[in-house]
Amino acid sequence: MIKPAQFTLRFKVRDYECDLQGIVNNANYQHYTEHTRHEFLHAHGVNFAEMHQQGLDAVVARMTMNFKMPLRSGDEFVCTLNLRKEGLKYIFLQDIYRVSDEKLVFTSEITTVVLDHGRLRDCEMLNRIFNL
Amino acid sequence: MIKPAQFTLRFKVRDYECDLQGIVNNANYQHYTEHTRHEFLHAHGVNFAEMHQQGLDAVVARMTMNFKMPLRSGDEFVCTLNLRKEGLKYIFLQDIYRVSDEKLVFTSEITTVVLDHGRLRDCEMLNRIFNL
Amino acid sequence: MIKPAQFTLRFKVRDYECDLQGIVNNANYQHYTEHTRHEFLHAHGVNFAEMHQQGLDAVVARMTMNFKMPLRSGDEFVCTLNLRKEGLKYIFLQDIYRVSDEKLVFTSEITTVVLDHGRLRDCEMLNRIFNL
Amino acid sequence: MIKPAQFTLRFKVRDYECDLQGIVNNANYQHYTEHTRHEFLHAHGVNFAEMHQQGLDAVVARMTMNFKMPLRSGDEFVCTLNLRKEGLKYIFLQDIYRVSDEKLVFTSEITTVVLDHGRLRDCEMLNRIFNL
Repeated sequence: MIKPAQFTLRFKVRDYECDLQGIVNNANYQHYTEHTRHEFLHAHGVNFAEMHQQGLDAVVARMTMNFKMPLRSGDEFVCTLNLRKEGLKYIFLQDIYRVSDEKLVFTSEITTVVLDHGRLRDCEMLNRIFNL
Repeated sequence: MIKPAQFTLRFKVRDYECDLQGIVNNANYQHYTEHTRHEFLHAHGVNFAEMHQQGLDAVVARMTMNFKMPLRSGDEFVCTLNLRKEGLKYIFLQDIYRVSDEKLVFTSEITTVVLDHGRLRDCEMLNRIFNL
Repeated sequence: MIKPAQFTLRFKVRDYECDLQGIVNNANYQHYTEHTRHEFLHAHGVNFAEMHQQGLDAVVARMTMNFKMPLRSGDEFVCTLNLRKEGLKYIFLQDIYRVSDEKLVFTSEITTVVLDHGRLRDCEMLNRIFNL
Repeated sequence: MIKPAQFTLRFKVRDYECDLQGIVNNANYQHYTEHTRHEFLHAHGVNFAEMHQQGLDAVVARMTMNFKMPLRSGDEFVCTLNLRKEGLKYIFLQDIYRVSDEKLVFTSEITTVVLDHGRLRDCEMLNRIFNL
């Protein structure tokens, strides 16, 4: 069962994401979670590329990932997202479910911080938009 | 204007596809065209991964690409596909258009051949399905 | 200071690995650690692709990564590796250091297991080769 | 036989570059040629990332690639480079050879142009450095 979340994005495996084991290469799960975070921001009017141009960079400080079962060619899946804040850390909980049987494929916890021209600081814009 | 084609697939740029120039890295256009070809096959009941398991490998022999303008973060685009056959060659004409203004971003001609357990041969399955 | 390890591999950032923030995209660190593991196996006569053909697949079950400072265009770096075993788990500790100043860039703990035709099992070959 | 060239860079296939066909995915050849061009520039004191920061962007306008035989897991290879100029176009001829038997794997012709703050122009710096 796909647990409800703050934001959900649907994908389909692209064959070039599979490696010689015939399964999606692990590094692509990081891509899936990143794209989901950026689309989540975008849905709230925040543009990652524009933030960078203004000197604001959200960067990943720590990431824990659990790979429960592999995605394969042809699989459709959703990536879910929940956001909470701890001190200066914006923590994303992101899971991936296979659509065909709603099996849990992957879980992750991604800790990000915001750098303002390279210095760690609290991001009022994000706090306001997401009530953090 | 987006020229009608045999098959069209819609995408959105993912930020990890952009490089330090702030534009989509060229190699990703190859990914976009490959994914479009595989989805085209899939729409006709042909599974690329299953073909490989049966010893049939469609491989690219030659590729010409013209980069007319860059895709950027946030851009939506379509990749179109037309297929024709010349001898043993399956030739895909694939263009990319930006959705916002229908500008032509990229054109390509991709020549593929089919290997049966490593040997070049005509592929009756593809000929039948696509009337080639 | 680069801490001595069981195995060390030297790399140079490739510009296509950098994203629109001008730093190496996080997913590439996973690539770096994977390539280092495969080269470590190879240095001990174990071929990852051949293992797969024999039905033996080493897969990542869990991964924790800490990103301490970003790698940039032009940076040279080393990825270190130490391996230990816990039950059926092969645990790799892998760090990345920038060569120019030997600063610690990244640390990770990667838990892998071996599947024999899809079933979890102890891998005598790896145990013997690495005295685990 | 590996034909002598203006610049040559040696690589080893990384397993994550292979796809479900067990061969290097085509898009990676573009990565190999790009990295070779950037290392060629670097060997002559030109830094691609710094050029971008100064508003000078070398971009690919057209690319033709011939895939003669696939690279596989474990293969070592060299990418060669020859540069010539035609009008405002900097044209790179780049081939890839497998090291083990010096077989020609891949040939390409890559046409690039230089944009100065987005406008096409001749690049005196490159002309001077490379006597073009």
